[in-house]
Amino acid sequence: MLVHDLDTPSVLIDLDIMQRNIQRMQARCDDIGLKFRPHIKTHKIPDIAKMQLEAGAVGIACQKVTEAEVFASAGISNIQIPYNILGPQKTRRLADLALYNNVTVSADSPTVVAGLSEAADAMGIRLRTMVDVATDIQRTGALVDDAIELAKKIEADEHLHFAGLLVYPSNPVNRPVIQEILQALDGVGIGVDSVSGGGFGAALHAHEVPELTELRVGTYVFGDWGSVNKGWCSLDDCAMRIRATVVSYPTEDRCYLDCGSKTIAADRWDNAHGHIVEYPEARIYQLSEEHAHVDLSACPRRPQVGEIVHVIPVHTCVVTNLHDQLYGVHGEAVEVVWPVAARGKVW
Amino acid sequence: MLVHDLDTPSVLIDLDIMQRNIQRMQARCDDIGLKFRPHIKTHKIPDIAKMQLEAGAVGIACQKVTEAEVFASAGISNIQIPYNILGPQKTRRLADLALYNNVTVSADSPTVVAGLSEAADAMGIRLRTMVDVATDIQRTGALVDDAIELAKKIEADEHLHFAGLLVYPSNPVNRPVIQEILQALDGVGIGVDSVSGGGFGAALHAHEVPELTELRVGTYVFGDWGSVNKGWCSLDDCAMRIRATVVSYPTEDRCYLDCGSKTIAADRWDNAHGHIVEYPEARIYQLSEEHAHVDLSACPRRPQVGEIVHVIPVHTCVVTNLHDQLYGVHGEAVEVVWPVAARGKVW
Repeated sequence: MLVHDLDTPSVLIDLDIMQRNIQRMQARCDDIGLKFRPHIKTHKIPDIAKMQLEAGAVGIACQKVTEAEVFASAGISNIQIPYNILGPQKTRRLADLALYNNVTVSADSPTVVAGLSEAADAMGIRLRTMVDVATDIQRTGALVDDAIELAKKIEADEHLHFAGLLVYPSNPVNRPVIQEILQALDGVGIGVDSVSGGGFGAALHAHEVPELTELRVGTYVFGDWGSVNKGWCSLDDCAMRIRATVVSYPTEDRCYLDCGSKTIAADRWDNAHGHIVEYPEARIYQLSEEHAHVDLSACPRRPQVGEIVHVIPVHTCVVTNLHDQLYGVHGEAVEVVWPVAARGKVW
Repeated sequence: MLVHDLDTPSVLIDLDIMQRNIQRMQARCDDIGLKFRPHIKTHKIPDIAKMQLEAGAVGIACQKVTEAEVFASAGISNIQIPYNILGPQKTRRLADLALYNNVTVSADSPTVVAGLSEAADAMGIRLRTMVDVATDIQRTGALVDDAIELAKKIEADEHLHFAGLLVYPSNPVNRPVIQEILQALDGVGIGVDSVSGGGFGAALHAHEVPELTELRVGTYVFGDWGSVNKGWCSLDDCAMRIRATVVSYPTEDRCYLDCGSKTIAADRWDNAHGHIVEYPEARIYQLSEEHAHVDLSACPRRPQVGEIVHVIPVHTCVVTNLHDQLYGVHGEAVEVVWPVAARGKVW
């Protein structure tokens, strides 16, 4: 099959660029002695995870138990879930998964730890549990004192195994927090196996946080317009492109593509919803569900109705989650059609 | 099954509220003598379309040929596709669908009309084609003079049947444009069977545009926080609620729910990503993929980790498209689990 034969909108993955991204991030981690654990949220496809493992990754990270189930079914057994798993349905499934796989989870409160312990007890296993540490981005994560207490609590729990610290993002600004917790735990004789950092941007500075033992990154595998603008990768590193058609051109300075928020997601960077490869001066100024609204006023030449263009999306991970399949391409050849096996796994 | 048994996040549809919304919109159209054609983009579920037809709707509107295929397979044959269908793959599927169903499509340029004519010719059918008219929102649609020329072109094409005008949104501000086109077409002896208007807000003013013969609305069936804020419905009319869990509560004024942009989509209204029913003073100030970030500073009481809450999303249609199933509930009972049959249909 040729790319030419694909209907629009379709999500293309340039296989050469993706493979180069995989090799480069692994080499970066190897160089500074860090284990690498790709986050699968970006692709949600077991075959791509296997390429990452083949390149040297130690395992994968998933955000949801149901995502982990998909990858475990595909034969990938070293899985970290950096998320508070709460409620009897989820903790039971988690413990079930952990019975036959090397599963690690995280927690940032005693309530979460209690639920994990109960499920591990019921399953007769010892569940590997990390402490999620609060960082400068103020999302989940225990503050320093709470994190120390939580580590002690996990260490003392006969159904849990204290598996280290989880930090997101692991930018150098968060190093003092990591050091403080490590020192306090060392003071009470608690060993810390692993300090798992994460984030595409943080990966570029991982060597400045020598306490890290492991790195989790997702977006690097495809790259996106957001990452380009943050200086994390170049336009040439963007493997995902949405093949789209100019479906309407009602006035001289505006045209409409058949890729709206249902196709490229609503994310925006610097007032634009992505980058049109063939018309770099064009600006996707708005999205409706089925249309990208394009301002052509800065373009020296203009597209025609029916013309095919390629859009690099602002945030690749959320695009993947909208689609049933991605197309792996090599030049004009479609080499592989991947079902997005872990798409829409919200539990 | 009880709602209590559902894992989070899950998308609940209150069956009583939905049924009331269906009846009310149909009654509104009946009262002013308008045909009603629900847009299925909001629910993407044939069973709900059948409830709308049973209440009196004349047919449905779909945005994509592949969506139309799903509904045609479910036995719904009166289908309008208010979208420029371009490219040989799509026009062939469209003509195929039109062979055995009452299909109407729209066009806003000669290029689109030429493609439709070619596909209709190849299939040996006469394809019902409307002219998409430009409105104040400046999206697709032909400007007045172009619209008149396009109507003439369709009328003269032996493979197409001119099926009227398509207007979105059909707010009263767009009435003069409709009148001008109708008058010009009347002047050259071209009859206009149908003037199809659309939009939830426009539905409230449809009686002010007596040229309309038909109305297309989608969002009314579930309602959402965006529609409430625009004054199109009340909070009590919102049938969709996302059942979510408070998974983290790291500091006094912030907590995190397990429904991020992967679950409730990234849409925002007035600086908030939805409305938490149990904590109306709380504000969802940010979304990451798997977390809703909640500001609790204005709340007189605070939730606990593990507590279940319900979120009314900003834009219901894009939420539906993220999920494999919706749960129809009646009080505490889950009465039906609907697969979202037309989810992710981008072609």
